[in-house]
Amino acid sequence: MRFSATGTDAMTELAALLERHLDAIPMVRAMQVRVGDIGAATVRLHAPLGPNLNDKGCAFGGSLVALMTLAGWSLVEARLQSAGHAADVFVADSQVDYLAPLWDDLAADATAADGEDWDEFLGVFAARGRARIAIAASVPLPAGGMAARMRARYVAIARR
Amino acid sequence: MRFSATGTDAMTELAALLERHLDAIPMVRAMQVRVGDIGAATVRLHAPLGPNLNDKGCAFGGSLVALMTLAGWSLVEARLQSAGHAADVFVADSQVDYLAPLWDDLAADATAADGEDWDEFLGVFAARGRARIAIAASVPLPAGGMAARMRARYVAIARR
Repeated sequence: MRFSATGTDAMTELAALLERHLDAIPMVRAMQVRVGDIGAATVRLHAPLGPNLNDKGCAFGGSLVALMTLAGWSLVEARLQSAGHAADVFVADSQVDYLAPLWDDLAADATAADGEDWDEFLGVFAARGRARIAIAASVPLPAGGMAARMRARYVAIARR
Repeated sequence: MRFSATGTDAMTELAALLERHLDAIPMVRAMQVRVGDIGAATVRLHAPLGPNLNDKGCAFGGSLVALMTLAGWSLVEARLQSAGHAADVFVADSQVDYLAPLWDDLAADATAADGEDWDEFLGVFAARGRARIAIAASVPLPAGGMAARMRARYVAIARR
């Protein structure tokens, strides 16, 4: 796999690139989002609870969905970057389940949804300059289980 | 209808109550959300574009979904308040379509989803201390059409 062949330096560079992108968004700065682990198949984003509280003292639903959506966006962007493509990545639609309150710092993990294939996505993108992929993301609870989960479709369009 | 029978003073009081609730959430303050029209069947929320930009110069998707989710929450809260109920209102799940970029200030309109009935919702809540309703919300584009739309289910639980 092209992606897992990239080394630690490339990963660090990719994380820095994603953070520069994310930090250009005022609400993402307000959420204090930072990029965590970038693996071959997953991206994890983090955000502290403090700026992401709701009025009940647990994590704000708007922050949960934003963090999951950004994690999915970051994963698609990372895979395209690693394959040497320059693209704009947009979220097209999403389904979110809010499952349990989170009284701790936020993390969101994104991975390709069941049935999706990165090689196929990158092949279509290379051929047509446009491709679509479904991403699954979730916010883990410290004791196991999930605070929220999402399935979203992203569209990548080649940058001219 | 109980709701439309409330006068202008009651509406102003309701708007102030919703704004106090919303202002208790740091990200909502960062988004600069304010309560607009509260009608018998709809609530409109506003937010300026500035703090809600993405890295492309249009409205950030996370802000669109947060504003729609908050508009739905505000509508359910408003209907319960107007009927004299004290409840905690939670979003259970949502489906969002991101349709077009928005290069202007944000607004989100919430209304009951097709097939839902406020009298039934309030009747179930009064009887069981718990009820569920689906809300439709959208972010209008200045020239007509929508930047995004949402369908979400909310659960209201009587406050003891």
